[in-house]
Amino acid sequence: MENEKQIQTAEILCVGTELLLGDIVNTNAAYLSQQLAELGIHVYRHTAVGDNPERLKHALDAAFAEADLVITSGGLGPTYDDLTKETVAAYFGKKMEMHKDSLEAIRAYFERTGRVMTKNNEKQALMPEGAVVFPNHYGTAPSLAIVGGENNGKTAIMLPGPPGELTRIFAEEVRPYLEKRRGAVLVSKNVHIFGMGESAVENELATLMTEATNPTVAPYCKEGEVRLRVTAESDTRESAAEMCDGMIEKIRQTEVGKYIYGVDVGTLENAVVEFLHKNKLTLATAESCTGGLIAKRITDVAGCSDVFFGGCVTYTNDVKERLLGVKHETLEKYGAVSKETAAEMARGVRERLGADIGVSATGVAGPTGGTAETPVGTVFIGISTEKGETVRKLSLSSMRSREYIRIVSAANAYDMVLKSR
Amino acid sequence: MENEKQIQTAEILCVGTELLLGDIVNTNAAYLSQQLAELGIHVYRHTAVGDNPERLKHALDAAFAEADLVITSGGLGPTYDDLTKETVAAYFGKKMEMHKDSLEAIRAYFERTGRVMTKNNEKQALMPEGAVVFPNHYGTAPSLAIVGGENNGKTAIMLPGPPGELTRIFAEEVRPYLEKRRGAVLVSKNVHIFGMGESAVENELATLMTEATNPTVAPYCKEGEVRLRVTAESDTRESAAEMCDGMIEKIRQTEVGKYIYGVDVGTLENAVVEFLHKNKLTLATAESCTGGLIAKRITDVAGCSDVFFGGCVTYTNDVKERLLGVKHETLEKYGAVSKETAAEMARGVRERLGADIGVSATGVAGPTGGTAETPVGTVFIGISTEKGETVRKLSLSSMRSREYIRIVSAANAYDMVLKSR
Repeated sequence: MENEKQIQTAEILCVGTELLLGDIVNTNAAYLSQQLAELGIHVYRHTAVGDNPERLKHALDAAFAEADLVITSGGLGPTYDDLTKETVAAYFGKKMEMHKDSLEAIRAYFERTGRVMTKNNEKQALMPEGAVVFPNHYGTAPSLAIVGGENNGKTAIMLPGPPGELTRIFAEEVRPYLEKRRGAVLVSKNVHIFGMGESAVENELATLMTEATNPTVAPYCKEGEVRLRVTAESDTRESAAEMCDGMIEKIRQTEVGKYIYGVDVGTLENAVVEFLHKNKLTLATAESCTGGLIAKRITDVAGCSDVFFGGCVTYTNDVKERLLGVKHETLEKYGAVSKETAAEMARGVRERLGADIGVSATGVAGPTGGTAETPVGTVFIGISTEKGETVRKLSLSSMRSREYIRIVSAANAYDMVLKSR
Repeated sequence: MENEKQIQTAEILCVGTELLLGDIVNTNAAYLSQQLAELGIHVYRHTAVGDNPERLKHALDAAFAEADLVITSGGLGPTYDDLTKETVAAYFGKKMEMHKDSLEAIRAYFERTGRVMTKNNEKQALMPEGAVVFPNHYGTAPSLAIVGGENNGKTAIMLPGPPGELTRIFAEEVRPYLEKRRGAVLVSKNVHIFGMGESAVENELATLMTEATNPTVAPYCKEGEVRLRVTAESDTRESAAEMCDGMIEKIRQTEVGKYIYGVDVGTLENAVVEFLHKNKLTLATAESCTGGLIAKRITDVAGCSDVFFGGCVTYTNDVKERLLGVKHETLEKYGAVSKETAAEMARGVRERLGADIGVSATGVAGPTGGTAETPVGTVFIGISTEKGETVRKLSLSSMRSREYIRIVSAANAYDMVLKSR
């Protein structure tokens, strides 16, 4: 290909008036940044502009003044105000021509989804001469790369705005394209950690993290969880994966190893469903303060129905007795937020639903309802198996939001399920 | 105040390397954009840069080349790489000086939260001379405005990065400040619509929406819901609110009026909890395909415990029988995804939990599990009251994601509860 420049720096340029009106949150910029970081490409700026060719041209000028690569999202739809492709093509001095494969693909898409194709959609198959076109199996908007031309060997990659299309096309088409351009393959693996805080993980792995250059080790944290992204660069996917595995083995040898609950398991709830499948176990949930969140996240996982029977959301004491058979005396004597109630909830749901494992959560999620003995943030997580019941007490800060307290409670419930065997 | 320029255009400038690494999603830009749109201030660009004073200075240059106002978020923390305040002050040619009220407030914050204040936190109380300082009751980072100086009457407003702090300080302090600067008060009201699509709403209100200039009417949509933001500008909050009410009354007179379920009710689940409180009714949920989502969202609403008893997540047929008393014959004859099962689930949970209203959802959320008769996207929503049972059938596109199908199912459940009286 003509005059290709090596890609070291990038800018992400999102196009869409709906972004500037605040009607949608720019998740594309975060996704693309994460991906480019894994590819070792330094992102130095995000910009979002409206559907306005003048502004877009101005933004391209500013971006290419510093970046080797500009990735745009949005403005590739069929309507008159979708002008990203035309504007970028003009910027590179490229003419537009009909791209037959894309036209066929768009026709096939409309046939498949039973919708009517309009003349406007044909416009979506016009491509700048010499463009690298990435197939889009998820919509009608094109994805493409333009390299060189009047723009001094630099590269523009254009992706559609809807996150469902953008993320899939990037993973399937653009990432391999960029790896090829870099002449190296990058593989990343995510190490999932629960029960150890971010700073404790960083302290433990300080030397490893600062000295490692290939693979690199980078931490990031979610509510109650820490993840390490291990990224290796090599000639082949296999050897890069092996290098990652070697580093993960090193991490397992440290104190952090005890807290690893999986590699590339996606989420805690994914890990739980995988654990249940693997061990041929079934689960039922009994929730008070989490109000259905534990079950909801389990059922986010497609294919959970073999291992998840269901559960009860028992928000009142009366319902705890009716549905789960929690003893009236237990509630009277120890209260709804207690070790004893958590244990009876977990046992009750396990027995009544006939599952192998019952897990429960009862606590004070706030913002009100706390007392001196059980302040906001106090949560008991119970687990019941044929071996009996165990309860974990959480004392989260009462300064935390209701949402945070519920999310961390659910995370602990999953962690206890994973450790129940 | 010296040399204040009228504010018509703005840029949002977010500072933080974690944005460029993709570790966090930039929700601040969307929130601020929405707020500024309501204030009639035109946002023409978002930019995100790392914690790097040179880049920040460059971004300020580019922003002030066009904008009257730049709002920054992030880079106001206590550590060495938090340099937003210092960089913007230098840009305006202002010296830093200790701001006693802020220092006191930071000390008080540490006392209140029982944490130890370090020397670094004192740095957070240094302010550019002449700055307008907005109190922060939610953290230690300052919020401030600088106007004029060497920057030709333009304005910079700096806000902390954590969304919990940024949104509250904006609502309490910055919005009134900007209203004052504009010499007018803006009031926005959100009209919540369910059961009518976005384009149908726009068609119906086309004339109203294009002709209205004060109040303005702007639509935006969420999964299964449409909202209209009505914004009026006037001298006082009261008269602006009255103007909004007048416009909302006009909207109620149209076909759209039938589908309005509330004004400024936040979310559907908020509207449900309010509806239950107002009518002194109680609710119980029975969920199959939604897997706890309906209950989870109800219990997102603090204070729901007076009106929400709880519910059952009955993912298997066996559990539908055990927990809800759905008849074995019903499941055999009509299947789990049927009008009949939805009705029995709703009645079962209402009776067994002793609530006034039972609501149920059973369907095929996909991606697999569909058949010719009940394809992916088929969902039955049942409602049971003392008057009997009603069931609504949804036929959502099988191209939709599992997540979408579940969210729209929950939305329909809430809608049916709101219409149950």
